[in-house]
Amino acid sequence: MWDAETVKKFINRPEDVVAESLAGFAAAHPEVRLDAASRVVYRAEPKPHGTVALLSGGGTGHEPLHAGYVGFGMLDAAVAGEIFTSPTPDQIVAATGAIDTGAGVLHIVKNYTGDVMNFDMATELTTSAVETVIVAEDVAVEDSTFTAGRRGTGLTMLLEKIVGAAAEQGRDLAEVAALARRVATSGRSMGVALTSSTVPASGRPTFALSDSEMEVGVGIHGEPGRRRAPLASAHEIAAMLVDPILADHEFGGSPAVVMLNGMGGTPLIELYLMFGEVKSLLEKAGVTVARTLVGNYVTSLDMAGCSVTVLRADDELLGLWDAPVNTPALRWGI
Amino acid sequence: MWDAETVKKFINRPEDVVAESLAGFAAAHPEVRLDAASRVVYRAEPKPHGTVALLSGGGTGHEPLHAGYVGFGMLDAAVAGEIFTSPTPDQIVAATGAIDTGAGVLHIVKNYTGDVMNFDMATELTTSAVETVIVAEDVAVEDSTFTAGRRGTGLTMLLEKIVGAAAEQGRDLAEVAALARRVATSGRSMGVALTSSTVPASGRPTFALSDSEMEVGVGIHGEPGRRRAPLASAHEIAAMLVDPILADHEFGGSPAVVMLNGMGGTPLIELYLMFGEVKSLLEKAGVTVARTLVGNYVTSLDMAGCSVTVLRADDELLGLWDAPVNTPALRWGI
Repeated sequence: MWDAETVKKFINRPEDVVAESLAGFAAAHPEVRLDAASRVVYRAEPKPHGTVALLSGGGTGHEPLHAGYVGFGMLDAAVAGEIFTSPTPDQIVAATGAIDTGAGVLHIVKNYTGDVMNFDMATELTTSAVETVIVAEDVAVEDSTFTAGRRGTGLTMLLEKIVGAAAEQGRDLAEVAALARRVATSGRSMGVALTSSTVPASGRPTFALSDSEMEVGVGIHGEPGRRRAPLASAHEIAAMLVDPILADHEFGGSPAVVMLNGMGGTPLIELYLMFGEVKSLLEKAGVTVARTLVGNYVTSLDMAGCSVTVLRADDELLGLWDAPVNTPALRWGI
Repeated sequence: MWDAETVKKFINRPEDVVAESLAGFAAAHPEVRLDAASRVVYRAEPKPHGTVALLSGGGTGHEPLHAGYVGFGMLDAAVAGEIFTSPTPDQIVAATGAIDTGAGVLHIVKNYTGDVMNFDMATELTTSAVETVIVAEDVAVEDSTFTAGRRGTGLTMLLEKIVGAAAEQGRDLAEVAALARRVATSGRSMGVALTSSTVPASGRPTFALSDSEMEVGVGIHGEPGRRRAPLASAHEIAAMLVDPILADHEFGGSPAVVMLNGMGGTPLIELYLMFGEVKSLLEKAGVTVARTLVGNYVTSLDMAGCSVTVLRADDELLGLWDAPVNTPALRWGI
């Protein structure tokens, strides 16, 4: 069953990784319920009748995204595809129907061609009222391996938090969708990889990087970024991430929510060091860092790397950000 | 300043990693205050007068341990040494004096020779009333590279949480210390490494592992464990961790707090898969898994690996576990 040629990971058979990891996730978190057959994670306690529900999902390999954000104040359900593979329309239809309390469902979709297509198809098939927000905030490239237009990455999680809080307040579907679109257009991200991730079934790094190279602008599936660059200091790398973000959107004069996100294989000691560099660059540019997150929130398996997400906020968005949340991966105020 | 020969990490000069990472940590978390000169992280809002204070610390490289656990319901301060290096007595003396509200201070010390010696020396030098608990729960080996007796690892964090809650209730120093010793003797841990970590100043892996080997019973500084074994399945590895824990202590018939801890370089998708295996083995052995934690809580830089900690609990310990906590790395109920 196991052979020593296999990649160095805590797995059994590569084809069972997604099912077994989801089962372990559900075993660890009694506040969620796993439908193992359709690979959907639900809140154990559904929302009150007449409240807008939030659904997201995508390929696995980005943990804790998305299942880790199912719970009070964020998602009502998350659909899981295979590793780096879109979930199917029937998974999305089932989840949409199950969480619809009568007020409709917001689909939160990262901008990857397969995800967009399958969520679209599900919207046509479901009998629920659905609004969709596409997240496409990664400034690295205009089109990418699996994407027409920009990729959606770290901002997805910030959006799920803020819009989830608004849904708990009882706002209607049109209001929730409008807020989601406002958040989606107000944030920007950029990432960098020091190493490739390795997909278990492949057993080999997705892309090759020499010991002295990094990929600037990498995607969360290992898609090529802007350029292959020589390894640089944290100070220099921070500028490679922050400058394109600031060049793409006006962040001055408003408070910002800033995430320094690890890609899965980079430890906190480095992420905090990078955050110090990033915060200092943002403040020099006149951005007020009002809220921060540092850690592994939107990952790419075991990739060593990090990304920066900056969201231009205001009092309303900060209030929704601060509202109570109770999910496996994000919890405060409760 | 930077050269491409340097190790693939988000750092500037290796000698600045600890100071810069602590500065980034403090910049991310306004609820703590960093004394940069003495490398001590304090709660921004000190405890009320007459409340027992908790101090821990040790070498850095184990983030979020210890600074990530400074805050309401856990530590009052954490002293940081260089990477994998004990803090000095004068750091410990300064921190002890600063957090003593008149009710005395509990020192929580992982069982490494340098840590024990320097906390001991500080206890002789300080004018505060001090009690000390030594954590030494790793069942892998009886003596180790930097340790006489067993090593202290993951249980340290569980102890900080439970005893921190008791201190917030206003228990006196003798009661807090007695509880800490009860927790310290009620838990067991065991870890495994798939790869070595790399200390920035060295730039080379601490130990060599071939592509088909793992270190069973590894220490959090890369100390040798019980044996070098061929790579195995998650199912088999889980048994290599759980069996020695169950053989060393009676866990049946009581609820348990179980942590599946990542060593820094292993992503959540694998940690959850391992948790599923571990939980199922524990339940087969009659252990009731009452509370769980899955994630990077006590790490070893960028080591790919994980550890299991099982704490035999009762209603009192579970109540203290569930009590509100508000720290950068652990937050609930608030």
